[in-house]
Amino acid sequence: MSAVPPGTLHGVGVGPGDPELLTLRALRILDDAPVIAYPATTRGDSMALAIVDRFLREDQVLVPLPLMFSPAQTPDDPAYDRAATVLAAHLDDGRDVAVICQGDPLFHGSFIYLLERLGPRYAVDVTPGVSSVMACAAAVPRPIVHGAEGLAVLPATADEDRMAALLSQADAAVIMKVGRHLAKVGRVLDGAGLARHAVCITRVGHADEAIRPLREALALADGVPYFTVVLARRA
Amino acid sequence: MSAVPPGTLHGVGVGPGDPELLTLRALRILDDAPVIAYPATTRGDSMALAIVDRFLREDQVLVPLPLMFSPAQTPDDPAYDRAATVLAAHLDDGRDVAVICQGDPLFHGSFIYLLERLGPRYAVDVTPGVSSVMACAAAVPRPIVHGAEGLAVLPATADEDRMAALLSQADAAVIMKVGRHLAKVGRVLDGAGLARHAVCITRVGHADEAIRPLREALALADGVPYFTVVLARRA
Repeated sequence: MSAVPPGTLHGVGVGPGDPELLTLRALRILDDAPVIAYPATTRGDSMALAIVDRFLREDQVLVPLPLMFSPAQTPDDPAYDRAATVLAAHLDDGRDVAVICQGDPLFHGSFIYLLERLGPRYAVDVTPGVSSVMACAAAVPRPIVHGAEGLAVLPATADEDRMAALLSQADAAVIMKVGRHLAKVGRVLDGAGLARHAVCITRVGHADEAIRPLREALALADGVPYFTVVLARRA
Repeated sequence: MSAVPPGTLHGVGVGPGDPELLTLRALRILDDAPVIAYPATTRGDSMALAIVDRFLREDQVLVPLPLMFSPAQTPDDPAYDRAATVLAAHLDDGRDVAVICQGDPLFHGSFIYLLERLGPRYAVDVTPGVSSVMACAAAVPRPIVHGAEGLAVLPATADEDRMAALLSQADAAVIMKVGRHLAKVGRVLDGAGLARHAVCITRVGHADEAIRPLREALALADGVPYFTVVLARRA
C-alpha cells in the first residue's frame, strides 16, 4: 500500500436556513468533497443537512456527527473526540471532508471544537457563511448596528449578571438561542434600557419563521423555540 | 400616462470582497433588477461594484451613489438625501432598484440610511450577506466566539473610553475599520486583557489580503489600511 497525502478539512457555512443563502464558494466545496459530514441529533436529524440536501450527489459519503443537543455540550465533550476520530479516518485515507455548518463555521457552533482537535494535524479551509444574525435583521428589516455604536452579542445561556454587565455598556444587542431563557433575556434587556424596541425572530428562513416584538413574545403562553434571536437597539 | 406600481428597493449584501462569497439569492436579485445602485467615492470608485461586476449585464442601469468617505458621514449627511432622491425616481417609475452593499446591508454601511429615508414609502427586500467579520475569522482560521462567551463588536472610530468600558465586560472582541486608529485599538485591547492573542486582518478576500498578530501590526511603520479588522479573544 502506498501512502496517500491526507485530505483537507473544510468547514462550510451554509447559512441560517434558506438554501438560497448558500454562497458560490460553499456550493463549489460541497460539489468537490467526496465526504460530507453534518452535525445531527442522536436520532440523525440535521438542520444543516436539510439546507444543502438538494445540492448533494448520490456518490457522496454522508457522515452524521451526533453533536447537537448533547446534554454535556462543552468543548471537551467526548462526542467531539469521537466525531474527530471518524473524520480523521477519512482524511488519513486522502479524502477531503466538508463539515457543513448552519450559519457560519466560526461564529458559535460545533466546527470550532472539531477545528481544535483536527486543525493541528490536517490542512484546513473555511468557507464563511451568512449568520442568522444578519438573516434576522434582513427579515424584519432593521439595522443591527451602525455608526460608532457598540454591539454586544451573547447566547441566552450566558450567566444573567455577566449578560447584564456587557449589555449595560452596549448601544445594541443580539441575543441568540433564546428558547427557555426568554424571561431572563427580557429582564436583562429591560435593565439595560434595550427592551423597548427589541424584536424576536424565530426560525429565520424556515417555513414557520415568526417575527414579533419582544413584549409580545414574553406574553406567549408556550414561550419561544431554541432558534430564536432577539435584536435590540437603544435608539 | 398611466400610473405604474412603484418598484421594490432591494438591499443586497455582496460579501466582503471575494465574488465567490455571493449568495444564490444575491445573484438572483441582481439578475432581475433593471437598476443597480452602488456606494462609490466621489471619483466613482466602488468596492461593491468590483465584487459583482462580472455578474452584471449591459442592459442594466448603473447608478453610482457618492456616499463613501464623505467627510461628514453621519446619518443626516445630505449625500444620503440626494442618493435617496435619485433612487426614488427609479422606484416611482416602477423599476426595482438593487443597492449593492459590501458585506451585509444592515450591519454598518450606507444602506441603513437609505432604508431610513425610503423604507416608509416603498416595498423593501433585504438579502443578507457574508460579513467581513466571518470572512476574517475564516481567513486565519480561528473562532470568533463560542459557548457562553460575550462578544463586543465596535468600529475603531468609537470613543476610547466607551470602547474600553464595553471591552472590559467582553470575552471576545471584533474591532472594524481600524486604519489610523490602530494605536488606540491596541491600547484599549491591552487594557481589557484582550491584546495577547489578537490578530489583524487587512483587506480580507482581496489580492493584497494580509494577516498578522496585533503586536506585529503595531510595529508597522506605515500603519494599516482602513479595511482592517482585529479579532481578539481572552482565551
